[in-house]
Amino acid sequence: MLDQTIKEQLTAITGEERFSDTHEQRVVYSYDATPGFQSEPDGVIRPASVQEVQQIINVCREHRIPVIPRGSGTNLCAGTVPSQGGIVMVFTHMNQILEVDKENLTMTVQPGVITLDITKRAEAEGLFYPPDPSSMKISTIAGNINENSGGLRGLKYGVTKDYVLGLEAVLANGEVIRTGGKLAKDTAGYDFTKLLTGAEGTLGIVTEAILKLVPKPETKQTALALFHNMEQAAESVSAIIADKIIPATLEFVDQPTLQAVEDFAQIGLPVEAGAVLLMEQDGEPEVVQRHMEAMQQICKEHGAISVRLAQNEEEAAALTEARRSALTALARRRPTTLLEDATVPRSKLAEMVRFIEETAAAYEVEICTFGHAGDGNLHPTCMTDVRDHAEMERVEEAFAAIFAKAVDLGGTITGEHGVGEMKSPYLEWKLGHAGVEAMKAVKQALDPDNILNPGKIFAKDTKKRIVLGGGSRG
Amino acid sequence: MLDQTIKEQLTAITGEERFSDTHEQRVVYSYDATPGFQSEPDGVIRPASVQEVQQIINVCREHRIPVIPRGSGTNLCAGTVPSQGGIVMVFTHMNQILEVDKENLTMTVQPGVITLDITKRAEAEGLFYPPDPSSMKISTIAGNINENSGGLRGLKYGVTKDYVLGLEAVLANGEVIRTGGKLAKDTAGYDFTKLLTGAEGTLGIVTEAILKLVPKPETKQTALALFHNMEQAAESVSAIIADKIIPATLEFVDQPTLQAVEDFAQIGLPVEAGAVLLMEQDGEPEVVQRHMEAMQQICKEHGAISVRLAQNEEEAAALTEARRSALTALARRRPTTLLEDATVPRSKLAEMVRFIEETAAAYEVEICTFGHAGDGNLHPTCMTDVRDHAEMERVEEAFAAIFAKAVDLGGTITGEHGVGEMKSPYLEWKLGHAGVEAMKAVKQALDPDNILNPGKIFAKDTKKRIVLGGGSRG
Repeated sequence: MLDQTIKEQLTAITGEERFSDTHEQRVVYSYDATPGFQSEPDGVIRPASVQEVQQIINVCREHRIPVIPRGSGTNLCAGTVPSQGGIVMVFTHMNQILEVDKENLTMTVQPGVITLDITKRAEAEGLFYPPDPSSMKISTIAGNINENSGGLRGLKYGVTKDYVLGLEAVLANGEVIRTGGKLAKDTAGYDFTKLLTGAEGTLGIVTEAILKLVPKPETKQTALALFHNMEQAAESVSAIIADKIIPATLEFVDQPTLQAVEDFAQIGLPVEAGAVLLMEQDGEPEVVQRHMEAMQQICKEHGAISVRLAQNEEEAAALTEARRSALTALARRRPTTLLEDATVPRSKLAEMVRFIEETAAAYEVEICTFGHAGDGNLHPTCMTDVRDHAEMERVEEAFAAIFAKAVDLGGTITGEHGVGEMKSPYLEWKLGHAGVEAMKAVKQALDPDNILNPGKIFAKDTKKRIVLGGGSRG
Repeated sequence: MLDQTIKEQLTAITGEERFSDTHEQRVVYSYDATPGFQSEPDGVIRPASVQEVQQIINVCREHRIPVIPRGSGTNLCAGTVPSQGGIVMVFTHMNQILEVDKENLTMTVQPGVITLDITKRAEAEGLFYPPDPSSMKISTIAGNINENSGGLRGLKYGVTKDYVLGLEAVLANGEVIRTGGKLAKDTAGYDFTKLLTGAEGTLGIVTEAILKLVPKPETKQTALALFHNMEQAAESVSAIIADKIIPATLEFVDQPTLQAVEDFAQIGLPVEAGAVLLMEQDGEPEVVQRHMEAMQQICKEHGAISVRLAQNEEEAAALTEARRSALTALARRRPTTLLEDATVPRSKLAEMVRFIEETAAAYEVEICTFGHAGDGNLHPTCMTDVRDHAEMERVEEAFAAIFAKAVDLGGTITGEHGVGEMKSPYLEWKLGHAGVEAMKAVKQALDPDNILNPGKIFAKDTKKRIVLGGGSRG
């Protein structure tokens, strides 16, 4: 609990109406989209300007109060759970698109803008903001920046980091810095733009971002290929890329996920298939046409049962939406859904999926797998129940085995979800002790009092973790 | 000078044949491609493995000896001048391409591989490594990584940083870390891959890199557009991008540069033009064809005197080579050539070029300008003579004015050359005091004894700078 002096200092900055420490607010901001993690903050504050953020940071630093920046809380790594208490900083009052610069192909935004609004605004200007995390309808851009969110277009277009050209951020010492700019090239000093992107709010609070836009692709086509098994799908993925085609989307869905999606969406998906690839290409019409034909041919040569080209935009949207609804569909089956994002080099895709299946069987847990086949970014998703402690232990062991395997295959413990609190115990598996220590040194240098989102990325035995009594997220 | 004990420790690692502290070797490694900076190292060492690098770092840390990693020394920011003495670490014995992975589209290389060899090897496999710094025939990949080198394809393809997927590096504490991997997505902790890329060897010594490759574009076309003046050329650049064309190359050359190149290369360039755009597009044949036609049309609509489409590969190569030879051509004119890389948002291109012309006139110095119009990365190039101290003072003041203007326009003091020692006095202009202090904190955290390339990026009054008595670089 905050003492009265601190509350007065904070409300002097934002006014009474943008600070709260009611029980209701503290409960609302005690969790995010990650099942199994909950911890109440001491208060919730909503700054309206960079100056207010600065003043809040100064108060919090003075009193050693943790500050947890939070967008919509859609992250899946417990990245915004106030695991050491403190103030949750919410950006609903800094949610403006400040500028679209068509000449320099940039958009300047405040942290609280919803990702989908950025997409829509870009499209309205004939431009394109490619990152499309599954949560984009509710997630905020600063949330995406903090977690370096990915999405379905990673292979061809990259992830959020590839579209952040510049940042304004408040550091733990209360100083405001500006990194990068409307520049395709800038090598003046260390790349703090990329360092802050994906730093999960542990190195600075993002208060403004300059995003890179690209011309909107002229056209897009979507196709769905059905296979008897995962190996055929994975071989098709490799063959497509070997044929020098980089599709906009190359998504993989396994049979149980397919069944769950069809049960949920009822759009006539071919539930008998052992594996499905959703393929999209965008760009110039003749190139898209040629690539789609080549991809269909390759899939057939690798044993596809059938390849269905969406005949119009509605059908294409339905197919894409079906893939996007995978998490929602799976989440209906059991009380708790744990969505992971172990990632491997593309060539190891089939091996990893097989390992996930074997691991699920060995630990007697239910894991479906879907994900971004083109960039090896898999989402093994476990349907379970946090109230069943025996099962939860097996789930944790199964995921630990999956992370270890991903690292062994040259992959990583997280492709696009971030480390947060959830995956911090595994970070060293990927980076080694020296790698983690080097990152800790950077954290210590920029935030010596550990006030910025403490307990994230780096594992602490002292973390305050409350296992939820029940319920989960759809 | 190194004492005998230290020399014995170092030669115990590499043998006598890969360590030298002869006068000749110390002079050879006392400068790089940057005019006006010279300082002798205490010795030169050539490690043959990451273990040797590690052992050398441990010796140097024990004795607080600076270590300056160096490829071919082609950098233009005094980034490899041993300004505080120490050991220059040269990577001629770690120059192997270790692997081309066609399935994951990666190439794994040692630090000393020549950039052009990477380009050629990728092309031999039907793949493409886009970064093409002008020094690519002699520069090494780790030099490119340390300076985050750009090139002519920045607008469409990005810079070196965009093609570094993973690194092995030795930190100042002697630990070896591995970052990233053969992964399109990886968000496990802070992005040390991007932090080390462009860090100029001040945070770690790169000992291996995983590079990203892309499919080789099917075709390429080249055209040259002549304009009466810079404004027409700049307007054409803006109009091309507004037309949603992102060309592979969009290079600008001013009239004096054009004249110098023609004097040098004698390939019949139209020296009467006030400004020239070199335009290239690559990709699928029909798209390239359409884009080239559109760009020609746009240039004509904006007052181009003429647009000439290269009729074959030889003619295209001659045009590109002419642009690439700009620095060499200009360097013939006076004893000293200072090539800068002030960079502005693309929309500010014409304003910046005008300012450079006015500034050169005001300070009575000769500055030609060429560069990467598509990404606002200009190379104002001053032909002068370091022996003429009065003129050199005016040159320095002129460049200071140019850097200040670039920053005022939302640009940066260096787009692709790096800060090194040369631009360190200007870094704060771009980043502000708080920005520089934050970067210094990272440096201090990772290299507390300041042994890794000290005196670079961050300005020090104590730097040992010897102005060369004469000569310069072509």
